[in-house]
Amino acid sequence: MAASMYRVTGLFCRINGIIQTKRSLSFSQTLVQKMTDSLWKLGRLNHVAIAVPDLEKAKSIYQNILGAQVSETVPLPEHGVYTVFVELGNTKLELLHPLGQNSPISGFLQKNKAGGMHHICIEVDNIKEAMSDLKKKNIRLLNEEPKIGAHGKPVVFLHPKDFDGVLVELEQA
Amino acid sequence: MAASMYRVTGLFCRINGIIQTKRSLSFSQTLVQKMTDSLWKLGRLNHVAIAVPDLEKAKSIYQNILGAQVSETVPLPEHGVYTVFVELGNTKLELLHPLGQNSPISGFLQKNKAGGMHHICIEVDNIKEAMSDLKKKNIRLLNEEPKIGAHGKPVVFLHPKDFDGVLVELEQA
Repeated sequence: MAASMYRVTGLFCRINGIIQTKRSLSFSQTLVQKMTDSLWKLGRLNHVAIAVPDLEKAKSIYQNILGAQVSETVPLPEHGVYTVFVELGNTKLELLHPLGQNSPISGFLQKNKAGGMHHICIEVDNIKEAMSDLKKKNIRLLNEEPKIGAHGKPVVFLHPKDFDGVLVELEQA
Repeated sequence: MAASMYRVTGLFCRINGIIQTKRSLSFSQTLVQKMTDSLWKLGRLNHVAIAVPDLEKAKSIYQNILGAQVSETVPLPEHGVYTVFVELGNTKLELLHPLGQNSPISGFLQKNKAGGMHHICIEVDNIKEAMSDLKKKNIRLLNEEPKIGAHGKPVVFLHPKDFDGVLVELEQA
């Protein structure tokens, strides 16, 4: 849209002379400024992660009660979780259950014995630029460098206190 | 896919005679049974609802910090909430803030002062059939009849104790 607006502005300039040309320059400067400001872009919701105390029971609820398409259980020992994906067409739910002693979701399940929503994961087109920009905006990053997430892609977690109590994961698209 | 499999089975029958015909009948009976079992279908994730203690601050975070497209604030007095939609391309976040004395999210924000994920909303193609089926499967419905939700469509809320601590809203697509 921005490009076509610029073309329209250029046409006006040719018709209306120098005053309009100045306006156009200022407008295109704003455009360049905006482009410089946003070196990364927020994308689609990759998944909603739900911590569950009983993975087989949770799988059965989504598969047999709600009729959803549910993946096999995938153990991810390097992340301390078992995962199951529930396919919803436009995005997915990720059921998480602790694996091993130092699972990152054990504490959450101790506080929320019935389970609950653990985090949301949103894709970004450039995770390094996103991290650098968010840091400048005083957003607290839970990892200083991108780490490899459960889908094998670079991710960063953002502090829930900066997002209304919501743990936000950004994943390189 | 089921229909084309049936056509393939029919072709085999014509070639292989009566035993195959019997097999085909049993196969089509299974198909009919399956169709009877599922008079409703789970659809896409409509939104993730997030309760926030300060709506203007939350709007600014998603708009100015994350660069998301954010709607105007919409007051919905009949639902006791102000809503703001954050567009993520494939789905949206719904920021909720209490409106009036009897807001359904006031209690949640008293327990979670910083805010947090309140519910997920999944679309269904036939909410009446979904409600009847889920009731038979002993899922607790928080409203006995579909009620008109924030988007003007019939919705039902399902008890979080039946979904690993997650409040699930089903919305007629």
